Amino acid sequence: MREIALAADLSPGNLYHYFAGKDELLYFCQSRALDRLLEAAEEAHERRAPLTERLRSLATAHLLCVLDRVEGGAAHFEVDALPPRWRRAIIAKRDRYERRIRTLVSAGIDRGELAPTDAIVATRAFLGALNWTVQWYRPDGPDSPARIAALVADYAVAGLAAQPPAGAARNRRRTRQRRRIEP
Amino acid sequence: MREIALAADLSPGNLYHYFAGKDELLYFCQSRALDRLLEAAEEAHERRAPLTERLRSLATAHLLCVLDRVEGGAAHFEVDALPPRWRRAIIAKRDRYERRIRTLVSAGIDRGELAPTDAIVATRAFLGALNWTVQWYRPDGPDSPARIAALVADYAVAGLAAQPPAGAARNRRRTRQRRRIEP
Repeated sequence: MREIALAADLSPGNLYHYFAGKDELLYFCQSRALDRLLEAAEEAHERRAPLTERLRSLATAHLLCVLDRVEGGAAHFEVDALPPRWRRAIIAKRDRYERRIRTLVSAGIDRGELAPTDAIVATRAFLGALNWTVQWYRPDGPDSPARIAALVADYAVAGLAAQPPAGAARNRRRTRQRRRIEP
Repeated sequence: MREIALAADLSPGNLYHYFAGKDELLYFCQSRALDRLLEAAEEAHERRAPLTERLRSLATAHLLCVLDRVEGGAAHFEVDALPPRWRRAIIAKRDRYERRIRTLVSAGIDRGELAPTDAIVATRAFLGALNWTVQWYRPDGPDSPARIAALVADYAVAGLAAQPPAGAARNRRRTRQRRRIEP
């Protein structure tokens, strides 16, 4: 807490006035980052535009959030560090966010705007391309968060939109059958 | 070490015969997983086939490696747990693997088989879609590693192959100019 207070230009006493300890501060930051992501997801739901455009805006917002120097650190959602009660709250919010994206992906598949595939797996692969940036992006490197966000959002949406290569046709058909059988 | 020995049906003494401790065992497992990935990358380099096919085989091999129950745990490449000397060795091997993939991606861009973009960022986004599976895949769930590998490999390669949406054209041009200017 002492180091965090120093970095935030606050006295440790002042920081303790708002947060009982590191756990509570981490919870607050993660929760706030997820609120921002959920807001971006709501916007994507409400917009009237092709699904690829809406998902691209959402991906960009997600990337700018996790690559942000200040908010980013908190947005990695390392829930293992939290006490069980708060961990459950963050996981519930994270799952809600994932479901919002999956609804968009499913709608895109149903309308033929996105490639026919398993919406659950595709949504997670999409989120993987976005979240993994935290592992390799260096804020002190030559690339701005905005440039990385634009390039990775392009990649992530292209993966959803493109028709898979010919070799994948069999898997695709299996998946579609499954989607029809399972409610 | 006692628990690992138990899981491997070995006496702790037997395990210590091969490995001085947990660090050495972790290093050995990570190194071996990376050797397998490098082998798959070599195969992808030597094959005569469209780049999308070669990258798809490589992505599938990568996914089957990280999703494997036994090898997978070691392949997450959590290098922070290793002492500095071994950490450096694993990072060097991991970087070599990334460079091998990037060479394939660059070749695909140059030949027009893949979308024109920044090969470094695209390679990392590709690896992100693959590596993030470890965060969400449940071996006790309904999906086999083979099914997830096929679907995520489709997604990851489609992101490289597809032409980005119209909105991204400006970024793309900037990137190509940069590629030409910088050696």
